[in-house]
Amino acid sequence: MGNTFGHLFRITTFGESHGKGVGVIVDGCPPGVDLTEADIQPELDRRRPGQSKIVTPRKEADHVEILSGTFEGKTLGTPIAMVVHNADQRSEAYTEMATKFRPSHADYTYQEKYGIRAWPGGGRTSARETIGRVAGGAIAKKILRERFGVKILSWVQQVHKIAAAVDPDTVRVEDIEANIVRCPDAGLAEKMIRLIERTRRQGDSVGGIVGCVARGVPVGWGDPVFDRLEADLAKAMMSLPASKGFDIGSGFDGVLLSGKEHNDLFRAKRGQVYTTTNRSGGVQGGISNGESIHFRVAFKPTATVLVEQDTVDINHKNTTLKARGRHDPCVLPRAVPIVESMTALVLIDHALRHHAQCR
Amino acid sequence: MGNTFGHLFRITTFGESHGKGVGVIVDGCPPGVDLTEADIQPELDRRRPGQSKIVTPRKEADHVEILSGTFEGKTLGTPIAMVVHNADQRSEAYTEMATKFRPSHADYTYQEKYGIRAWPGGGRTSARETIGRVAGGAIAKKILRERFGVKILSWVQQVHKIAAAVDPDTVRVEDIEANIVRCPDAGLAEKMIRLIERTRRQGDSVGGIVGCVARGVPVGWGDPVFDRLEADLAKAMMSLPASKGFDIGSGFDGVLLSGKEHNDLFRAKRGQVYTTTNRSGGVQGGISNGESIHFRVAFKPTATVLVEQDTVDINHKNTTLKARGRHDPCVLPRAVPIVESMTALVLIDHALRHHAQCR
Amino acid sequence: MGNTFGHLFRITTFGESHGKGVGVIVDGCPPGVDLTEADIQPELDRRRPGQSKIVTPRKEADHVEILSGTFEGKTLGTPIAMVVHNADQRSEAYTEMATKFRPSHADYTYQEKYGIRAWPGGGRTSARETIGRVAGGAIAKKILRERFGVKILSWVQQVHKIAAAVDPDTVRVEDIEANIVRCPDAGLAEKMIRLIERTRRQGDSVGGIVGCVARGVPVGWGDPVFDRLEADLAKAMMSLPASKGFDIGSGFDGVLLSGKEHNDLFRAKRGQVYTTTNRSGGVQGGISNGESIHFRVAFKPTATVLVEQDTVDINHKNTTLKARGRHDPCVLPRAVPIVESMTALVLIDHALRHHAQCR
Amino acid sequence: MGNTFGHLFRITTFGESHGKGVGVIVDGCPPGVDLTEADIQPELDRRRPGQSKIVTPRKEADHVEILSGTFEGKTLGTPIAMVVHNADQRSEAYTEMATKFRPSHADYTYQEKYGIRAWPGGGRTSARETIGRVAGGAIAKKILRERFGVKILSWVQQVHKIAAAVDPDTVRVEDIEANIVRCPDAGLAEKMIRLIERTRRQGDSVGGIVGCVARGVPVGWGDPVFDRLEADLAKAMMSLPASKGFDIGSGFDGVLLSGKEHNDLFRAKRGQVYTTTNRSGGVQGGISNGESIHFRVAFKPTATVLVEQDTVDINHKNTTLKARGRHDPCVLPRAVPIVESMTALVLIDHALRHHAQCR
Repeated sequence: MGNTFGHLFRITTFGESHGKGVGVIVDGCPPGVDLTEADIQPELDRRRPGQSKIVTPRKEADHVEILSGTFEGKTLGTPIAMVVHNADQRSEAYTEMATKFRPSHADYTYQEKYGIRAWPGGGRTSARETIGRVAGGAIAKKILRERFGVKILSWVQQVHKIAAAVDPDTVRVEDIEANIVRCPDAGLAEKMIRLIERTRRQGDSVGGIVGCVARGVPVGWGDPVFDRLEADLAKAMMSLPASKGFDIGSGFDGVLLSGKEHNDLFRAKRGQVYTTTNRSGGVQGGISNGESIHFRVAFKPTATVLVEQDTVDINHKNTTLKARGRHDPCVLPRAVPIVESMTALVLIDHALRHHAQCR
Repeated sequence: MGNTFGHLFRITTFGESHGKGVGVIVDGCPPGVDLTEADIQPELDRRRPGQSKIVTPRKEADHVEILSGTFEGKTLGTPIAMVVHNADQRSEAYTEMATKFRPSHADYTYQEKYGIRAWPGGGRTSARETIGRVAGGAIAKKILRERFGVKILSWVQQVHKIAAAVDPDTVRVEDIEANIVRCPDAGLAEKMIRLIERTRRQGDSVGGIVGCVARGVPVGWGDPVFDRLEADLAKAMMSLPASKGFDIGSGFDGVLLSGKEHNDLFRAKRGQVYTTTNRSGGVQGGISNGESIHFRVAFKPTATVLVEQDTVDINHKNTTLKARGRHDPCVLPRAVPIVESMTALVLIDHALRHHAQCR
Repeated sequence: MGNTFGHLFRITTFGESHGKGVGVIVDGCPPGVDLTEADIQPELDRRRPGQSKIVTPRKEADHVEILSGTFEGKTLGTPIAMVVHNADQRSEAYTEMATKFRPSHADYTYQEKYGIRAWPGGGRTSARETIGRVAGGAIAKKILRERFGVKILSWVQQVHKIAAAVDPDTVRVEDIEANIVRCPDAGLAEKMIRLIERTRRQGDSVGGIVGCVARGVPVGWGDPVFDRLEADLAKAMMSLPASKGFDIGSGFDGVLLSGKEHNDLFRAKRGQVYTTTNRSGGVQGGISNGESIHFRVAFKPTATVLVEQDTVDINHKNTTLKARGRHDPCVLPRAVPIVESMTALVLIDHALRHHAQCR
Repeated sequence: MGNTFGHLFRITTFGESHGKGVGVIVDGCPPGVDLTEADIQPELDRRRPGQSKIVTPRKEADHVEILSGTFEGKTLGTPIAMVVHNADQRSEAYTEMATKFRPSHADYTYQEKYGIRAWPGGGRTSARETIGRVAGGAIAKKILRERFGVKILSWVQQVHKIAAAVDPDTVRVEDIEANIVRCPDAGLAEKMIRLIERTRRQGDSVGGIVGCVARGVPVGWGDPVFDRLEADLAKAMMSLPASKGFDIGSGFDGVLLSGKEHNDLFRAKRGQVYTTTNRSGGVQGGISNGESIHFRVAFKPTATVLVEQDTVDINHKNTTLKARGRHDPCVLPRAVPIVESMTALVLIDHALRHHAQCR
């Protein structure tokens, strides 16, 4: 039952890495939205492996097909099913994975929980699972943009120790997409790319931090006390493979300020309320306050590294394993569209909830 | 609809600060558990205002009453309703709050979202709301301890810039509860207490970091891909008032390691699998791996500070506001039992889900 | 987890017959609705035992108290908790029930499912459980009436073999409430009352059929394919104690018509669409079509009869049991407000869902 | 959000009649179940149009493909996506349907609710939507049979005025499947078939009653107070196209009995409890009592009849419409596997819930 996300705008994803395909059903999409595959494919292309020299080289076109929920190019209000067929259903390189658990992957926990796992390519634990999220998120982003004027931007803020200072209020998509690492600071982007390339040659991997902002969210989205906007964003982000941390607004750094320093003061201009600072990150009491919503997500270095490591096998015997074949030195560039997608899914759900509750 | 948390073990909370009472319904509690008010009250006492010189001085006994769901001292499997009546229903000191929004509080967002708010004491946004969570969490903790052998411990790890190094595998409840700030490092605890007292005298406030560990969780809890254990923990923690960040295992610091450095290697001893390090924080692929689950929660400094601040009123006019009366210099000591409660609620829900799914 | 009903307007009920109290939390109620106990109490009075000579004589005032969710007489958009304390917490007459299962009651199934049960008064299986439904439904009815112009009426249509012909489009509340059996046909009402009195004297019980209509529901409520309006109504009605059947529009009798006879033809008058007949019962494809929604609910005769009957005890030994004390010869008059309440809960939920989805 | 059914074993269906395909995601299926398309296809074949001379003649093979959730012929515990591609994506015969609403169909309500509808073949309101239910139900039936020993049987009990007397405790699948109308009474089956053939020639349609029994359900399934077993069964049945009524056990006829006559007496034999009659229909207090669960579903005559009828168009102008092309004189034979499927989905969900709650 853990494969559904959202309440009123709800996605249910499916698919294993080397099965027939992966995809999603989007339920609760409002009717009358212009929608074809051309609205989805560009987002999948941003997520696609093999898109640049610094990401995993798996070659898949990831061509999306809409099976239902639209008629003559418009959404019907009925479930939208989307499928991406897997090109790469067979793998010989990985057979050792059938019996040995890769360190810091989910092989062991899946095997123990379910008593079975689709070991080729990691099965359900593969990053291919996020295709359904991105396809669903593409619809959410489009509706947020067209019907609510909300714009979501994500970027790579830090790779290993190389950290950019990015202003969430002014960062531009052109600057983010100007380089393959998706860091809006062109100079640091160059350094990050070189680091990732070097890391790849060493058979190693690096993690980092992705930043995200949602601009234009009106006051009032979020559903206290449990379904606070930041709580649902945190869940969305921490449901991503390899994510290890989330903070919003001042976040972990905010603990170094006192209350007098930290408070965002309200001001009004022509009846329009705003805050002079935004340490709240656009959310107060779990509800959007009209300021930009900005947060960070920490991703660990990917677990697949090209070195022989200690591990155990499915019979709980000690052994060693050396990864072969494809290896992703840094997930961050491809995480950017995924973070945007999950953000969009959280926001559209709360947009609909807000309209339902407060008439 | 945002006042329910959990799926199979599910709490629904209610109550405003200065209304008649606050409380919770726990639905899905297994039958046959020994349960009286004596199991709940000690946890509420740990959360209670006025428990020490460093927390908010509001005087409330917070006496809990179980209205349903038990018979002859045992749970029935039916909903357990618990109520804490508010002693302090009237407040004169706060009347300015009726028309002015306190900076970095939720007054503004509630007013805009709902068009109405219970302004005395912050209404639903008051920390009194967490009483229902702690009462429900007390039951969850008890069942986890008695039926699953799971022990949850939380502590204050950092106050402003005073940071303790706490080993989640060895920290003991006696050391945590040995001082009023609930930091297991006695020397730093003393410093923290002095800092909080000084901060209070200055009419200011400080935030910090709470650490938490769950020991004894078996392999297999967690429900990918969206209801990963860390995703639900993140949601639980980010649903708490004043929380701004969450990370698990290596967390934000993990981005400074390479994959080779970060991986947790598996070893087996007499058929028992373990990892030689625990940067995963006890969760891999969203599922517990048998190691200790440990994570951190960042809390901002409380917003009520005793200084005149710029703000706006309910007519969106600029004004100023100076808080009067009670003032909480640091929420961290009282956050400890709340973090434990939410952790217990997440874990018990996944314990039941695991038993449901994987027979 | 089975004690919550609804998605956006959601009630969670609690309470056992002889515990401290029964009640409900209503979550998702729109803010700004005028609400005090005076809006709830009249509905509870219609449900109350002892209200007339033909219902169970238990004497309880069933006085409701709102604990949260309102401020200065208006709803806040936060959870509304309501409690009715039980006057009658001790019962001596029933002690045999501790060890013997009453035939056609839920004693046996509760004991086997949970391994424990609150046997006094039937515990959670007592009709007192419906108090929370009626309290929550009273709010739903009020909002439907005031904000949507929807009016819900229920009545006793049949008692044992005495069946009234009631036109759902014209039946009036004055005629229903004109007599204690709540049958709008005054002549038949008299016969029903005499039958119930005779049945009571015989220590026996009778069942019957309750009819219900919702007038003024606009086109568009209902959420195919699973959450059709009639599906949610059916679930609501079949969740009531003693209900055994549900049908809508032509219902079971509709099978005797051919398609040509059964179809409701559309006509339009000044752009307003209507149907010339209403065998659909106001719902087509799971969505309201603007006509009156009308349906029936069958209730079995209550299981408590004053005669010695074969049964088994908690050790699964054959024995006999003779009920003592209070005995309800006919639940139908008191079922009327409960059916209305559940109808209102279904409709308000779909009203909010409709507003969420179709902007 | 209305396209998901179930909590722990949960299906989400998709697809329009003349879109690319229809299908389902099953989430929550236990791992380790042997499963290939060969387990699903026979159930779809029982539902298929064109299977006999008395059902709608649309020619579709309805070939199912499993896209995910299995590995080497076993379920993984991950979502199982299944697709049936539509052969018949274009339809010329129906173009009048683009602008006119068919009487007693859902054309009008869908158009008004969503502002758009996939008119070819009825779009989402087509009976093709039930393919996903049957595919998901096939898995549920298999698990119930293999892991719980539960057997579900459904049959045609009444067509128009021809009513069979069927004993739910003894009816056999061989007798049901022995004829194309799926009535276990061979003599009446013959009459029913002749009636349906005559009805078809007249361009008319007939409805009727489907009976269903689940044998072998253990004591304890069902989740009061709202998610009673009969409540969820009622919802499942009333979510089917053309269903108008549901009753369980004695049902509507039970109102003609007094309590003394109606009660099911408990007896025990070698510690095994049973009831001497089964007017409860296998459910008491919302929980299965170990007896056979039996209920009835009333289906109206299908709305498509080959006669010119009054109706309105999408501009709300009066007009007439005469259906052309395919016409289904009686849905009952094809409803049989659908009723079984929905029953299985309700039962498996409660089986898992029971295991989760009551350890």
